[in-house]
Amino acid sequence: MSDAADRVWITDVGPRDGLQNESTPVPTAAKINLVDALSAAGLPDIEATAFVRASWVPQLADASEVMHGITRRQGTLYTVLVPNERGLDRAMEANPDKVAVFTAASETFAQRNTNASIDETFDRFAPVFERCSAAGLPVRAYVSTAIACPYEGAVAPGAVVRLIERLVDLGPCEIDLGDTIGAAGPEDIDALLDAVGGTVELSELVLHLHDTGGRALACAQRAIERGVRRFDAACGGLGGCPFAPGAPGNLSTSSLVRHCEATGLHTGIDVDAVDTAARAIRSVLNS
Amino acid sequence: MSDAADRVWITDVGPRDGLQNESTPVPTAAKINLVDALSAAGLPDIEATAFVRASWVPQLADASEVMHGITRRQGTLYTVLVPNERGLDRAMEANPDKVAVFTAASETFAQRNTNASIDETFDRFAPVFERCSAAGLPVRAYVSTAIACPYEGAVAPGAVVRLIERLVDLGPCEIDLGDTIGAAGPEDIDALLDAVGGTVELSELVLHLHDTGGRALACAQRAIERGVRRFDAACGGLGGCPFAPGAPGNLSTSSLVRHCEATGLHTGIDVDAVDTAARAIRSVLNS
Repeated sequence: MSDAADRVWITDVGPRDGLQNESTPVPTAAKINLVDALSAAGLPDIEATAFVRASWVPQLADASEVMHGITRRQGTLYTVLVPNERGLDRAMEANPDKVAVFTAASETFAQRNTNASIDETFDRFAPVFERCSAAGLPVRAYVSTAIACPYEGAVAPGAVVRLIERLVDLGPCEIDLGDTIGAAGPEDIDALLDAVGGTVELSELVLHLHDTGGRALACAQRAIERGVRRFDAACGGLGGCPFAPGAPGNLSTSSLVRHCEATGLHTGIDVDAVDTAARAIRSVLNS
Repeated sequence: MSDAADRVWITDVGPRDGLQNESTPVPTAAKINLVDALSAAGLPDIEATAFVRASWVPQLADASEVMHGITRRQGTLYTVLVPNERGLDRAMEANPDKVAVFTAASETFAQRNTNASIDETFDRFAPVFERCSAAGLPVRAYVSTAIACPYEGAVAPGAVVRLIERLVDLGPCEIDLGDTIGAAGPEDIDALLDAVGGTVELSELVLHLHDTGGRALACAQRAIERGVRRFDAACGGLGGCPFAPGAPGNLSTSSLVRHCEATGLHTGIDVDAVDTAARAIRSVLNS
């Protein structure tokens, strides 16, 4: 295997996707500590926060303070999520290394989660791509509900392919397919990768897995066998459903790192340091 | 104890609040069977469906068909949920016995769940109250997130009191306080009832409990001790979080009936018939 094939790239989305789903208010200092601890653990990419309306996601209202408070480590990218140009205006002042935008493969989920149709999400982020391109900033494009929608049920892989075709035209640095409700089993990953493989290089795809059904790691393993090398995960498995406190959240970063290292793949991440970071943020959430 | 104090009134919200949170599409015939089975079991009140935009809640797009397909039993009220006057227009054609409207005690939840501020929810349902009053139709008023909000955390009982004061002016037949995410313990029920007791008779209040934290029945018992006699529940405990399939949903109707009867309170409900109805709808959801 080549060096590239031996390497798995993990983005820790705990500070954003994880905390976003926690109703316990987290102090800004604890968020900064979390990002700094993940930096120290060697994470190559950290989704640090989101610049969204505070009334929509109160937990992330302090996005600017977090971005200005963190200590940046050479070798780590600090990504921020934005829903539209207004979010980008605020994000730009925080000097991110990467910007993330989002759409969904399910029309109902787009409506409920972003208050926009799928087409409208493209209208919102098309100018974000333009301005980021001019500024030399890479853009990650999320596709939520790539496996199943909490309102509509199973999502056809063909719907995901059509979205990817539209996204590729905008020039994202990576396309991130999310199993938002953790419904996938390995066979669903196969079906999804079979469908999208003709449109995007699997090595340039990101998978965003949730462990609601306890199968996130099995799905990651299947994706690795198929050639996927980029994954999201969250320190401490943060990010359970906001309606079901304690429900499993994102694929745990430590679990994924341990699995990769055990199977001869390298992540560059210090798993013990991730565990320490997870305990620290969990103690804040449970206090 | 008087007859009234011996009696607990249960509304089965399974066909509406329960199915609304299930991503598995349920055939119209199965919904009709569920309502008919609950009627046969002696439920005094059944929230049969909701007249909301199909793009917002695809599962309930067949509300008219359900209402026209059910067999009405003498002694059961058939309630339908409407968000606004447009929903009421459609609902009126289905000849409901009661109409339910909703607001929330948390501004963020109102935004996310109804795409409206709390004030805007009042603007939406004020004309619903007027038209229902003219038509002699009783109106139930829901207050979601009366205990905690998935986005903002704990909700102050004072915020619920202020909402109730505004609602009482509109003339609802009952006010239904919802622990939408199942966060309450008995001590939270005490605090809530302490706060609202000066504004509304506890015997005219409805509690809507979810069992996410496994404490719904303990909360119901505490409320009964305090004088509450009206509860929502769902056949089979339907209504887990759409983001966490399998998570506990509403307080189970059978559990509440058994608990009431064991403590000398009457419900008029045939618990075995409710269990049969639960098995039937669960088999549809799991098929």
